Amino acid sequence: MDDLEAVLSRVRDRVVPEPAERDHLRTVAAELAERTRAAIADLPVDADVVQVGSTARGTWVSGDRDIDLFVRFDADLDREQLEEYGLAVGHAVLPDGHEEYAEHPYVKGTHEGFDVDLVPCHDVETAGDLVSAVDRTPFHDAYLSARLDDDLADDVVLAKAFLKGIGAYGSDLRTEGFSGYLTELLVLELGGFVPLVESARSWHPPVEFDPEGHAERTFDDPLVVVDPTDPTRNVAAVLSAANLARFQHYARELLAAPSEDPFEPADPAPLDAGDVRSHLDRRNTTPAAVVFDAPDVVDDQLWPQLRRSLDGIVRGLNKRGFDVLRARAMTDAEGPDREGGGAKRAALYAELEVAERPAVARHEGPPVAVRKHAASFYESYADDVDPETYGPFIDGDRYVVEREREFTTVREYLESDAAGDVALGAQVEREFAERDVLVGDAVATLAPAFGVPLREFYEPHP
Amino acid sequence: MDDLEAVLSRVRDRVVPEPAERDHLRTVAAELAERTRAAIADLPVDADVVQVGSTARGTWVSGDRDIDLFVRFDADLDREQLEEYGLAVGHAVLPDGHEEYAEHPYVKGTHEGFDVDLVPCHDVETAGDLVSAVDRTPFHDAYLSARLDDDLADDVVLAKAFLKGIGAYGSDLRTEGFSGYLTELLVLELGGFVPLVESARSWHPPVEFDPEGHAERTFDDPLVVVDPTDPTRNVAAVLSAANLARFQHYARELLAAPSEDPFEPADPAPLDAGDVRSHLDRRNTTPAAVVFDAPDVVDDQLWPQLRRSLDGIVRGLNKRGFDVLRARAMTDAEGPDREGGGAKRAALYAELEVAERPAVARHEGPPVAVRKHAASFYESYADDVDPETYGPFIDGDRYVVEREREFTTVREYLESDAAGDVALGAQVEREFAERDVLVGDAVATLAPAFGVPLREFYEPHP
Repeated sequence: MDDLEAVLSRVRDRVVPEPAERDHLRTVAAELAERTRAAIADLPVDADVVQVGSTARGTWVSGDRDIDLFVRFDADLDREQLEEYGLAVGHAVLPDGHEEYAEHPYVKGTHEGFDVDLVPCHDVETAGDLVSAVDRTPFHDAYLSARLDDDLADDVVLAKAFLKGIGAYGSDLRTEGFSGYLTELLVLELGGFVPLVESARSWHPPVEFDPEGHAERTFDDPLVVVDPTDPTRNVAAVLSAANLARFQHYARELLAAPSEDPFEPADPAPLDAGDVRSHLDRRNTTPAAVVFDAPDVVDDQLWPQLRRSLDGIVRGLNKRGFDVLRARAMTDAEGPDREGGGAKRAALYAELEVAERPAVARHEGPPVAVRKHAASFYESYADDVDPETYGPFIDGDRYVVEREREFTTVREYLESDAAGDVALGAQVEREFAERDVLVGDAVATLAPAFGVPLREFYEPHP
Repeated sequence: MDDLEAVLSRVRDRVVPEPAERDHLRTVAAELAERTRAAIADLPVDADVVQVGSTARGTWVSGDRDIDLFVRFDADLDREQLEEYGLAVGHAVLPDGHEEYAEHPYVKGTHEGFDVDLVPCHDVETAGDLVSAVDRTPFHDAYLSARLDDDLADDVVLAKAFLKGIGAYGSDLRTEGFSGYLTELLVLELGGFVPLVESARSWHPPVEFDPEGHAERTFDDPLVVVDPTDPTRNVAAVLSAANLARFQHYARELLAAPSEDPFEPADPAPLDAGDVRSHLDRRNTTPAAVVFDAPDVVDDQLWPQLRRSLDGIVRGLNKRGFDVLRARAMTDAEGPDREGGGAKRAALYAELEVAERPAVARHEGPPVAVRKHAASFYESYADDVDPETYGPFIDGDRYVVEREREFTTVREYLESDAAGDVALGAQVEREFAERDVLVGDAVATLAPAFGVPLREFYEPHP
């Protein structure tokens, strides 16, 4: 078994950026900042430029190529103008860029092989004066920059590489993992990567850290890290219970048997149709998938809607007796290499234990003793009213009937209006109306487009 | 719609015994009593004879042919001798009779077309001195004989005919209905048949009557009638919630739309195999039956065991995901004409909504945070230990695996030792070991032998 320090040293060699990579990034960032200042000069208002994020603080994982530049306008500038000027600067700096939307619209593009975000914000005095959430970023940057020395910065890079490797890095709403800011705060708070994993090994959620000791409220999340720049905010609010558990699991594994493996992203190859069929043979489940065009929205809008839809469908299936063994929302744009690539199709995928129910369903009436209700129940089902119903008969102290079941197959349900009514987000709802329903081996046709999430589904690991 | 009094008058004409029937019964009973006294004279101890039951009190339904004679021995006679002398007298009076067993063994036989029970008991001073439960019967007889006038006696006959008609008469442990004594006490307490059904119409169980106002304990039964001869006993203890509900249902129907129908026992014709198959087609369920030799015990021993076995099997099926829609214990000796005829075969019959499950089953482990349990769960399922298991993976805050399911078909379960282990009575357990399992259309072969309970199952009514 390798020694932990030896393992981390090898990982550090690989993931901590070399001086040449740092110099190159610094040069490109300076050039972009200069171009941004030139574009600002063409505006009728003043603004400044600040580089933020891990590339600003030297805490990026070698090979990451993200440069984040914030354009700070006066705190009094109204939102509409801020958006207009922000986009004007963005398009000027990144002529091939496109608009995306976080709190404000902003321009995203590439420059010399780097992914560049050019985001407008308000230059507020303190975090208490925030106009919108993005205004907070420069405060985060200042807080960390003042506290992370070179050793801690290297440990942040280790921690990020570890979280990426285990699939728990990223506060986007598909991943629901650890944000960069959260990772840096945890390394800072615990005093390094090894102290962090040693601590995480025995966490009992809810776990709370409050670096500045200034929390102004309580939080209902499994991990709470009170934002040092905002006493009302949990930096770990997006983190799912599963990703926290995943971090604990791999922290224990790393300490028990040090290895470079968890620092290597899995990058699963897509499953092909034959693989899917052989899993189905082995498992003898009935799979069902509702497939539809992915609405053209960013992942942070798409995924919460997909999850809500999946929950609704799973609830609907279970309620009608089509017992769900396991389910997952999927898109054809998943996998480390395709993140943010923009999904064309989405699928709500469920494996069922039961795909068919009888023609009749039990329906319990009131206790016979509850005279008024009992009489009205009995009369509404008596022989001459509904000859297709079995009963009413008496079971225990109640009337019971066996009446025609609404949905006897999973396909009937998934194609019905009832399935269309489950809680669906606005954009998904429109596309869902045009859904295709696949039941049984037909789901194999989802591979290879959905091959990566299918592999994660059929080869699940912590 | 017929007038209630007109209906009851016609029913009374049919069910209240005519003078000729009464005279004939009285003659035969007197002759049997005389023969009994002669047999007693051959014993080394003294005893007397008392006729008990409805034929003694003139409250039998016309056509019933039961004569119950109790042989009362001295209260000090020990049990063994009482049994020996009792059987000696019984066999002397009824040379073709056979022995049955209630509290003591006794002789049952026929004489001039009557079914005769010759039961030994102790002649105790008061009900408080009872040696065994049968000793109580003469007290019941004395209590009712002193209080039922001719009109009330006729109403008792009406009530019994009604309860027989709706299938709720008889305190045997198959029927779990109203005993004769309970029926007579209720008619006496409420003051007649019509007041009884008018009262029953709006009962809210638990309902309690205490004619002598001397209850010495509380009871947990839906209907409580405290025995006038024993303040610690509920005469309705055997009555099931279903039969009480059934009585309320038909009481309401009778008062709302008077008719002679409920006074006519249904006497269902046995279902044939084709009928069973067409119900299965219509319902699209999967039926399963466990069939075995009925142990050679009286119904009052058989039926509680069958019910316990059925409950155990239903619980076992549901627990393994073979969802039971409806189930029933059956014998090939059911139906009004065959009561007590001695079953040859018994069946635990269940209709399933689900008869097959996948090869894998979800198994939840502990939360990952519970370090010690979590680690031991993870290690016991890790890849290199069990390559056939899916996972362990993380779902929410827990480890989860999908491992091989123990029983994937209902037949596997029903034929397994696990099904043999469900709570079974001693005598049923032996026969159950040699069970046949029928699944699907094969259950149709149970008809016509089990045709009467099959009709009740597939044409259920209150």
